[in-house]
Amino acid sequence: MKPFLLPVSLCLLMALANCTPKENTSIPHPPVRPQYALVIHGGAGAMKRELMTKEMEAAYLLSLDSALTVGEKVLANGGTALDAVEAVIRLMEDDSLFNSGRGAVLTAEGIAELDASVMDGATGLAGAVAGIRTVRHPISAARKVMEQTEHVMLTGRGAEVFAEGQGLEIVPNEYFITAARRQQLEMQQKGEPTDGASNQVKKFGTVGAVALDQQGNLAAGTSTGGMTNKRFGRVGDSPIIGAGTFADNRVAAVSCTGHGEYFIRQAVAFDLIARMRYGGLHLFAAADTIIYAELPKTGGTGGLIAMDPLGNIAMPFNTDGMFRAWVKPNGERFSAIYKE
Amino acid sequence: MKPFLLPVSLCLLMALANCTPKENTSIPHPPVRPQYALVIHGGAGAMKRELMTKEMEAAYLLSLDSALTVGEKVLANGGTALDAVEAVIRLMEDDSLFNSGRGAVLTAEGIAELDASVMDGATGLAGAVAGIRTVRHPISAARKVMEQTEHVMLTGRGAEVFAEGQGLEIVPNEYFITAARRQQLEMQQKGEPTDGASNQVKKFGTVGAVALDQQGNLAAGTSTGGMTNKRFGRVGDSPIIGAGTFADNRVAAVSCTGHGEYFIRQAVAFDLIARMRYGGLHLFAAADTIIYAELPKTGGTGGLIAMDPLGNIAMPFNTDGMFRAWVKPNGERFSAIYKE
Repeated sequence: MKPFLLPVSLCLLMALANCTPKENTSIPHPPVRPQYALVIHGGAGAMKRELMTKEMEAAYLLSLDSALTVGEKVLANGGTALDAVEAVIRLMEDDSLFNSGRGAVLTAEGIAELDASVMDGATGLAGAVAGIRTVRHPISAARKVMEQTEHVMLTGRGAEVFAEGQGLEIVPNEYFITAARRQQLEMQQKGEPTDGASNQVKKFGTVGAVALDQQGNLAAGTSTGGMTNKRFGRVGDSPIIGAGTFADNRVAAVSCTGHGEYFIRQAVAFDLIARMRYGGLHLFAAADTIIYAELPKTGGTGGLIAMDPLGNIAMPFNTDGMFRAWVKPNGERFSAIYKE
Repeated sequence: MKPFLLPVSLCLLMALANCTPKENTSIPHPPVRPQYALVIHGGAGAMKRELMTKEMEAAYLLSLDSALTVGEKVLANGGTALDAVEAVIRLMEDDSLFNSGRGAVLTAEGIAELDASVMDGATGLAGAVAGIRTVRHPISAARKVMEQTEHVMLTGRGAEVFAEGQGLEIVPNEYFITAARRQQLEMQQKGEPTDGASNQVKKFGTVGAVALDQQGNLAAGTSTGGMTNKRFGRVGDSPIIGAGTFADNRVAAVSCTGHGEYFIRQAVAFDLIARMRYGGLHLFAAADTIIYAELPKTGGTGGLIAMDPLGNIAMPFNTDGMFRAWVKPNGERFSAIYKE
């Protein structure tokens, strides 16, 4: 072997042995995408630590953890981001702690009226339902709209008829209504102060999920009962693609929660995508700018969860708290309610 | 007069006489905002020249001109961009040539179901209604939502009850229905070819307006009956802030028309704003990129009208035609149907 070939051979050997030459350790590794990642929220709002009992805290953290586990199983088994998002949100819709599906807040007429949306970052397809009263899992209705129609948004009775035709579970409106929500509506309609611990917390609770699957695809979904005592078929940001939900494999996926009108006027979900794609901002910078700088200018309160294709996770909120949690492989797991 | 004051006085005199010093003519003038500007559309679609009769062409151009005149009067008299947008769209809603208000296309059940939205570029406030059947002027209902509630979007019966409470004119659904639309629905439901001249044209016709007023404020509005034979409470992009309509005094105002689902999935109206604000594109470049490059990638057909704070007007469309027209002071006036 000629002497000058020795260093080359050594390098080759080291490469084969998966070694890194000492002199390369100072070069940062390219970011590595985790096998999968999942982030969820259960609403942002004025959930102050001093107003929450230990029991309520524990109940919410347990619910977040259960939802996380269901979604993680899908992703660990090679399921799609879309499947994970739907599975997580279905569970949270069944969970009366949150303002979606069972346990949704009530309209001025005492009815549960539900909105949801979902978007597939791989295809750019999206589905949404608004103002539905009889479909147990609005997020599944939104997905059916995306996958079984040429439409994006179906509303009211028409959306219910479609969902029933798709074989989704239909329930009487009473299924969604809990005693706590009835009491909350009565207090609000009587003008009684609703600053007690349970009421403050119960004002919020829109749910959402963003997932990255093993194929590198992103998806996002959001589901809500809207605002307590809402009237006139009011629709917030949750079923609006571009406001409450957006997903684009090239950029990020996002689900929002908060005072929906502000999120619609500022097209928050798509604004995050745009600040990253056109403005060159990192996920963290884009998310923080919107939640901590842009929304407060107009008085908008709330938060969002977002993930980029590398599995980076942003969860900013400008309220006292946001029910939030995430999981990545190898036991990395996080859940929290308040700031810090 | 001291000698050194002479040049200053001369300049002042010239300024008063509206003269420009010779030595400045080589320096490009800063762009000058016109006193006001107004651009409107009546829908984009497959309106081929060979399929249109001369009479139809003339009728559409006359309708566009009437709408333009109504809006121009508002702006010339110092009215707001918002007032001009509402006045223009109210007239087009009354005009059965277009697919909004009277003359709207019919749902699968033979009902007119109307959507509209409006946004004020000065305040960032917005209003929208979806799926309403009894309000003569949906654009006015959208404006009432913006100005008289804390909400952005009201839907269905709730929106109608609200509009009636606001004193808006209520009409039976039959008011909106024309013989031509009934025939169009029947042909489509029988599966008969609808490629005759009148049917091709009648498939489209969402209306919209964007205005710049003497105070420099921008506003945008859109109104539609949606898609012929639509089912299940389908909602397109017209009532979706960020998809069909957006206005921001700092950037631009825009109203879209076309295959709504594509416009929702790509958040077209806000995407225009974002490409200008974050990407630094000029209005023309941003509008052309979306309509000629981005939308065709997914098969999306349609067009948009947009205006920046300097009164520049973009009207790109990737269909055979788009009913469109604009006016600026000093007799500048344009209207067209086909390409070129």
